[in-house]
Amino acid sequence: MSIHSVKRSQCHLAWDNSITPILRVKSGDTVSFDCLDASNGQITPTTATSALAALDIATLDQVNGPIYIETAQPGDTLQVDILDVVTAEWGWTGVLPGFGLLADEFPEPYLKIWDLPAGAHHAWFDKMKGIKVPLRPFAGEMGVALREKGPHSTIPPYRTGGNVDTKFLTKGTTLYLPVEVEGALFSTGDGHATQGDGEVCGSAIETPMKITVRLSVVKNKPYVKTPHFSTHKGVDDPNGYYCTTGVGPDIREAARDAVRHMIRTLGAEHGLSSEEAYVLCSVAADLRMHEVVDMPNYVIGLMMPKSIFGHKSD
Amino acid sequence: MSIHSVKRSQCHLAWDNSITPILRVKSGDTVSFDCLDASNGQITPTTATSALAALDIATLDQVNGPIYIETAQPGDTLQVDILDVVTAEWGWTGVLPGFGLLADEFPEPYLKIWDLPAGAHHAWFDKMKGIKVPLRPFAGEMGVALREKGPHSTIPPYRTGGNVDTKFLTKGTTLYLPVEVEGALFSTGDGHATQGDGEVCGSAIETPMKITVRLSVVKNKPYVKTPHFSTHKGVDDPNGYYCTTGVGPDIREAARDAVRHMIRTLGAEHGLSSEEAYVLCSVAADLRMHEVVDMPNYVIGLMMPKSIFGHKSD
Repeated sequence: MSIHSVKRSQCHLAWDNSITPILRVKSGDTVSFDCLDASNGQITPTTATSALAALDIATLDQVNGPIYIETAQPGDTLQVDILDVVTAEWGWTGVLPGFGLLADEFPEPYLKIWDLPAGAHHAWFDKMKGIKVPLRPFAGEMGVALREKGPHSTIPPYRTGGNVDTKFLTKGTTLYLPVEVEGALFSTGDGHATQGDGEVCGSAIETPMKITVRLSVVKNKPYVKTPHFSTHKGVDDPNGYYCTTGVGPDIREAARDAVRHMIRTLGAEHGLSSEEAYVLCSVAADLRMHEVVDMPNYVIGLMMPKSIFGHKSD
Repeated sequence: MSIHSVKRSQCHLAWDNSITPILRVKSGDTVSFDCLDASNGQITPTTATSALAALDIATLDQVNGPIYIETAQPGDTLQVDILDVVTAEWGWTGVLPGFGLLADEFPEPYLKIWDLPAGAHHAWFDKMKGIKVPLRPFAGEMGVALREKGPHSTIPPYRTGGNVDTKFLTKGTTLYLPVEVEGALFSTGDGHATQGDGEVCGSAIETPMKITVRLSVVKNKPYVKTPHFSTHKGVDDPNGYYCTTGVGPDIREAARDAVRHMIRTLGAEHGLSSEEAYVLCSVAADLRMHEVVDMPNYVIGLMMPKSIFGHKSD
């Protein structure tokens, strides 16, 4: 297996299956990406709030790639093992006019710069008030090209991933994406030092990031039609979670899709009938609003704790 | 402080501030409720799926009470400390026609009876397949009377609580409800042995339940306008969570309300400005869909880990 590198400058501003790949890799290869933050370098540790008004929105949310993975064909699944995520030593959270769940109530720009010392597990929000937040770095953007021709903005998430802004995609998690074009054409970016489910103000702790992933083509998961992911042990549940998602412009319909996808997965992987799977979802799985601010699409997840499976009858 | 008891028969089928209280208690008193399951005793361990069609929907989701708490006045908050929840040794999960997030795709009734041995921490879903679910018993219904006159169905949740069906309301959690009428008029019921966030098929593991709560009137939380709750240590986060909710017929608006209520709470309890609180919600708090099947109202929660507060500057 080979290890490849992608530079900060090797990025693009739309999902578009006509973009020439910057790399061709074999299934199972590892790729390390060096990514600027989601402002594409416009915000720095010394940026003042007053400068936010001049931000060029058209160059936000660049992603690094695309990577062509050999043997990947439409209908396959791309397995993305997240091997490492390292942030820069600073980050920012901003309220940008027009972004955020309460955009109408927060019309003024606001900027907070965070200090993220190397190796720290927490970042101070306010020392005087004794508030600090745990760091769980991940990439807000991970996706593959859509089958539809032409450019698609990198701001919304899609059924093929993209700006899913899902806090669980940390080191140790495996993400599954539906392949829609030959070679899959994977890209990533949008470093987050940490974020809550929803990213309600419109930004996380945004930061430059180095991320390393292993990219493998999987042929036996044809039921992956939107992003699925499997977290590692110790993420909130002893054995982690398996999550299915729904992605789209209607929250309720996205939630219904997340449930439909879990029912299909439980049928394929555990041999449950639809009714059995539906009931198991109701008593054991959690609906979570992973992303609600990257218009026009929402990401709703249904998270099933993996610790309910694999027990011996006593 | 006194201890009071409520019998199974002391129940009602609508939230209605004209119902005569079955008990008057002092603030700080403890009340133990013995409650039938949400089918009001219509489903038993020997019920067959074929019998679900004959279920009398009009008598579902009865609640036991109401309890008049002395000194409670409109504008106060009722603090409900959940001291103990014990289920019966059996439960049921059903797909009832017309209920559930995928009601249109699951038109046929389906019934599963569960074995819940006394003291067990898990219930077998399927021994052959090695699947069992952890038990986290709670009451699906906890609420106080609305200020609006007349009967209000116990099936939807309201800003005053009711059928909030929120899995975190287990032993050790404290629930806060806005008092809208003199005496608050608290009722509870709808025993659940466990449930995922969303209760997607329309039912949890439904079971008869004995629940003990301490009811206290709080005068210094005027910002509690929908249910808030504080979970105990060890519920998913080391120090538990403080959660605000939004309740209503539009999921996005309910999510916005949950965020607004957290911003107000962080201002009142931690002295944060609106912008600071909004940013902190974005990086640290999780939007969760606690209840999405009790039409016409949804319950969306914003859960803030309490472990981010109270740190000493180092």
